[in-house]
Amino acid sequence: MATLSLSRRVRRTPFSDGVEAAGVKGYTVYNRMLLATVFRSVVEDYRHLKQAVQVWDVACERQIEIGGPNAARLMQMLTPRDLRDMQPGQCCYVPIVDETGGMLNDPVALKLAEDRWWISIADSDLLLWVKGIVFGFRLDVLVDEPDVHPLAVQGPKADKLMARIFGDGVRDLRFFRFDWFDFQGTSMVVARSGYSKQGGFEIYCNGAANGMPLWHALMEAGADLDVHAGCPNLIERIEGGLLSYGNDMTRENTPHEAGLGRFCSTRTAIGCVGRDALLRVAREGPVQQIRPIAIAGDFPPCDRAWPLMAGELRVGQVTSAAASPDFDTGAAIGMVRMTHWNAGTALTVVTPDGPRTATVQDRFWT
Amino acid sequence: MATLSLSRRVRRTPFSDGVEAAGVKGYTVYNRMLLATVFRSVVEDYRHLKQAVQVWDVACERQIEIGGPNAARLMQMLTPRDLRDMQPGQCCYVPIVDETGGMLNDPVALKLAEDRWWISIADSDLLLWVKGIVFGFRLDVLVDEPDVHPLAVQGPKADKLMARIFGDGVRDLRFFRFDWFDFQGTSMVVARSGYSKQGGFEIYCNGAANGMPLWHALMEAGADLDVHAGCPNLIERIEGGLLSYGNDMTRENTPHEAGLGRFCSTRTAIGCVGRDALLRVAREGPVQQIRPIAIAGDFPPCDRAWPLMAGELRVGQVTSAAASPDFDTGAAIGMVRMTHWNAGTALTVVTPDGPRTATVQDRFWT
Repeated sequence: MATLSLSRRVRRTPFSDGVEAAGVKGYTVYNRMLLATVFRSVVEDYRHLKQAVQVWDVACERQIEIGGPNAARLMQMLTPRDLRDMQPGQCCYVPIVDETGGMLNDPVALKLAEDRWWISIADSDLLLWVKGIVFGFRLDVLVDEPDVHPLAVQGPKADKLMARIFGDGVRDLRFFRFDWFDFQGTSMVVARSGYSKQGGFEIYCNGAANGMPLWHALMEAGADLDVHAGCPNLIERIEGGLLSYGNDMTRENTPHEAGLGRFCSTRTAIGCVGRDALLRVAREGPVQQIRPIAIAGDFPPCDRAWPLMAGELRVGQVTSAAASPDFDTGAAIGMVRMTHWNAGTALTVVTPDGPRTATVQDRFWT
Repeated sequence: MATLSLSRRVRRTPFSDGVEAAGVKGYTVYNRMLLATVFRSVVEDYRHLKQAVQVWDVACERQIEIGGPNAARLMQMLTPRDLRDMQPGQCCYVPIVDETGGMLNDPVALKLAEDRWWISIADSDLLLWVKGIVFGFRLDVLVDEPDVHPLAVQGPKADKLMARIFGDGVRDLRFFRFDWFDFQGTSMVVARSGYSKQGGFEIYCNGAANGMPLWHALMEAGADLDVHAGCPNLIERIEGGLLSYGNDMTRENTPHEAGLGRFCSTRTAIGCVGRDALLRVAREGPVQQIRPIAIAGDFPPCDRAWPLMAGELRVGQVTSAAASPDFDTGAAIGMVRMTHWNAGTALTVVTPDGPRTATVQDRFWT
């Protein structure tokens, strides 16, 4: 365990006061903002997330707003996913790649209107890439960070809690759809989405000043539902195969390596950056790819890439790992070369505490 | 004090093993990498820095390498500083701005050759901006992160220590000049530079595998000089007026507001991004600017912007603050509106522990 020194540069969020009052025990830094990692314990948070409902400060999923006549053209330049059929009110998971097909971010895009979009980003300064592209191509769009701050409500009781705040209309939201709902006189986007497999919503809190009123309203309305402050849970997200940009894939990887080939329509996403580079890998397939990996025995926290070995040959690496109580296994996410990525392949993962047996799985633990 | 949860996303450096073995007590996250903030105590580290010599893991100052026929043109596009007279072997502090003149980073550029440069970055993903510009303007350059990792040697005994490792030639380096020196058969850039006012060098460690051998060599050679692991020191950098990007200035600010107008030659830096926006502010001057601020009494760690008030009127903010033992004052860095920025102006700074008297200074504490 290390101590985090605080400064303005590692920014607080509109919900930080609530996170602190709820007894946060650990943070990471995400997009140069505080992101909680644990409240009671990672295992206790995990069990509670699967049974009740949690409120997560995910304001570190910072927003990029794109508005203007060239907004749709810009969005299609940014991603190899074909956005032609995307409707206003829809969320889309959009891998963003550079000119070589290397992943720069894996955000969720929200289409507010034909000429207005938000991009809800993972951990890289995607704003700088977007601004550079806009400047270089002289596109007629405004790009900025709006005063909008995501707060997630996750868990099986999320519908019940959310209906108490926003009305029964939120129950009708389909997965990865959003609509506008009133909170104390302010209209806010609410989407059925979130970084867990337990179901729930993300509220795009409109205005930092509404942050703590919204936090308190959810906590008060959910008291009988055992609502608790929470955060993305390491165990639950690995079980569910939810990738983390910067952990499981980086600029070194194509979307195909990250197992996101199904979100790439390189032939029809005309004008997207990286198309030339991705066309070939789209046809031939990648030489390495993300796989679920079971690890036998105990292991330390995964704070660096752990080599995956087949005898003396390095055939991949593990980048996220946690002990899963529900599945009674070491659950991990790794990148494995095609020669060794078939389910059932037995490998060795080299942890700082020594080698462990690692087995490629055919699916994540859901 | 908060606890930092570790993951691969918050990257270790080639020197992290040394930092840990030296008993690091606190970290921040800088460019998604670990950066130590304290070893013995901030005050003890501060006194030692001013008397002896420290080795700092500043690998989080990540490098961007720009190479190719358009490298010099690209560099001049990136900054309003006029680079026409810059020679190979020279370092230059270069504010980098967007098309509106807002600061994106304040790195040090190293000119290796007419067609090869490194940019040693502050805390933002400048790589994405540079790549976006290069792609948009179809410039003939390669942009990438080289396998180069800065290690700083700072303090009054830095020359003596460095000469033992790299030979007496390092003593001849002038301020903000660099040259190539051998370390165990590998040629490395050594510059006379660093984020303190105590003098010293930055070694651009060539190859991650050379990181720990270099660390150990410095520690062993400096034993009789009382060498110790260190890090940028909050007190010393505020005393010296060394700004921190993300703390004291952000994308909201122009270089002129940050007091960096002397590094901007907007009229002659032909082709630089943001020229149109900066021409006017260069002529009229900014409406707010960085100032040294003395704070009376005690105050908590500065983890957010503290408002500076003149009665009921908000006239600025403090963004870095620390108690200075040597100058027996609360030393701070603030951004103050021109109506109240004259030296001697008495203001009130609103800290989370209550209001304190703040006085604008005419110079930093050096």
